[in-house]
Amino acid sequence: MAPVANGRYPVPGETIVYDASETIDVENVSLNGGFLLKTLELSIDPYQRGRMRAPGTKGTYTGGYALGKPLPNYGVGVVVRSEHLDVKAGDHLYGIYEFKSYAIRHDLASMQLIKINNKYNLPWSAFVGVLGMAGKTAYMGWKKFASPKKGETLFVTTGAGPVGSLVIQLAKRDGLRVIGSAGSDEKVQFMKEVGADVAFNYKTSNTAEVLAKEGPIDIYWDSVGGEMLEAAIDAANTNARFVECGMISVYNNGYSTPIKNFFQIIAKSLSFFGFVITRIEGEYNEEFYRVVTPLVGTGEFKFKEERWDGLESVGEAFLAVQKGTNKGKVVIHVADD
Amino acid sequence: MAPVANGRYPVPGETIVYDASETIDVENVSLNGGFLLKTLELSIDPYQRGRMRAPGTKGTYTGGYALGKPLPNYGVGVVVRSEHLDVKAGDHLYGIYEFKSYAIRHDLASMQLIKINNKYNLPWSAFVGVLGMAGKTAYMGWKKFASPKKGETLFVTTGAGPVGSLVIQLAKRDGLRVIGSAGSDEKVQFMKEVGADVAFNYKTSNTAEVLAKEGPIDIYWDSVGGEMLEAAIDAANTNARFVECGMISVYNNGYSTPIKNFFQIIAKSLSFFGFVITRIEGEYNEEFYRVVTPLVGTGEFKFKEERWDGLESVGEAFLAVQKGTNKGKVVIHVADD
Repeated sequence: MAPVANGRYPVPGETIVYDASETIDVENVSLNGGFLLKTLELSIDPYQRGRMRAPGTKGTYTGGYALGKPLPNYGVGVVVRSEHLDVKAGDHLYGIYEFKSYAIRHDLASMQLIKINNKYNLPWSAFVGVLGMAGKTAYMGWKKFASPKKGETLFVTTGAGPVGSLVIQLAKRDGLRVIGSAGSDEKVQFMKEVGADVAFNYKTSNTAEVLAKEGPIDIYWDSVGGEMLEAAIDAANTNARFVECGMISVYNNGYSTPIKNFFQIIAKSLSFFGFVITRIEGEYNEEFYRVVTPLVGTGEFKFKEERWDGLESVGEAFLAVQKGTNKGKVVIHVADD
Repeated sequence: MAPVANGRYPVPGETIVYDASETIDVENVSLNGGFLLKTLELSIDPYQRGRMRAPGTKGTYTGGYALGKPLPNYGVGVVVRSEHLDVKAGDHLYGIYEFKSYAIRHDLASMQLIKINNKYNLPWSAFVGVLGMAGKTAYMGWKKFASPKKGETLFVTTGAGPVGSLVIQLAKRDGLRVIGSAGSDEKVQFMKEVGADVAFNYKTSNTAEVLAKEGPIDIYWDSVGGEMLEAAIDAANTNARFVECGMISVYNNGYSTPIKNFFQIIAKSLSFFGFVITRIEGEYNEEFYRVVTPLVGTGEFKFKEERWDGLESVGEAFLAVQKGTNKGKVVIHVADD
């Protein structure tokens, strides 16, 4: 597989451009049997960096973004008008949205659109975060790969993010001791609020030292890769499980940070599970919504969002997610309901 | 974990010394309720390099060898005299032997000694190879981690060795297509004899090119690590399993060859399973002897040994295994039965 990205951070206004030239007549545009969707909330996620690459280059697991076209990613919208039997005006749909204010669609399947049952009256943004792809990543990765046992120790990176913070809460429900790392004191505070037993700022504390003191670890939830992964390998207990969810540290340097202590996978009988949520969600979708929706709806599971207003903010929001300067799940608020 | 080895090949006569100074009076030595074992065959295995390290340094998964003491490893011997109820003269025992001609033992458990039932009249050396630790490593690693599916493709390294050649035969029985690599044309020939569909000499063929042509691979059996592992990652299919059995390429360079393309574990949803046979053999020992003994005994499973004569050959034999210049499972023939 060729390197997928050019090894630099994206540049707002250059690599992502806001274009207001296209217009739509919402009330009169012809639907041709389809339905008109108004975009409400859009998700910005770390994995998207891998889709930002030169046309024609082989990718990670996702399609490359097409030059000059709107970005696609998860979002929530509302049906404004419909000529389609499966949806009616007022329905809220979760799925893949182009980053535009409006779109006409002719079916649900091609953009993986599903109707949202918002019986707990959550903000629509929750459905692209804790109840969207991020929440599914945490829940399904935990269920499928972590094999948690009560009393074990978990180390989770980006523990204040939408995936990491849910992993902390899932692990605490399963009776584990949790060590969480993040990149600011505010994030450390949030990890404590959601239950982390040990929470530290990896920019001001030495990860290897923290793990030497608080480990060994039985489960490592990796969203970082690189040196953090090496530190986790060094601190791993025999038979530890590594859930390889993401590697933000490599996304802007050509995807090639070397791992130097990998022999320990044998010495310590470690297991590593790489996964991509879209490949396993079919197996767990029903369970996810059934189990997690009430936990979020009743407030038992906490989540934190950082709202950015308008499509014009996408470039900066995208960069913030790559650099980790955001303070919660980044959501682009495109329009009110 | 600190580096375990000094990053050089062992030096026969310096790092392993033959010492003929100790003597024993076989017929009259006092047993004190124990039994006198005569060593017949001793195993030399790649993993032993990790035990050869400075006293007091933290190790891989095995105890460090003590300076000035006989090496311990798997062997087969015969009971010469016994005062112990559990064994009698003429019994053959498999387990841990000190590299000496004779030893007095007082129990079976402390050296993991078990009695051999040699109903197929195999050479005793088979019980330290295809029916010993090497065979168990192949069989149990395959059963526990490979999840083979008929029609899938396996890539196995050191495919002419005692572990790799058995993995090839297990995979063929399970209906897989097998690509094997080894370091000489003679070894390539042996891989073909035991069923490999594609067999190549990694010293004269480019591994990445072979895998690009013959892959993608669904299972990688790793006994090499380093660049070979990177090539396997590059050639892996989605959902491929990596059975991490050994990493001979790192044993003599400080255990630290970097892996640069590890992000693909996520992109391709790969699973990696590191293991150490002593941690899982309890689970599979009964099945192993029941299933594999007749396959070896009837000649259906082939194996190849390289016999070295006498304890004085241990230093050179040890180095041969580290360098891969051996042509089959290295066995030290200490004495005739």
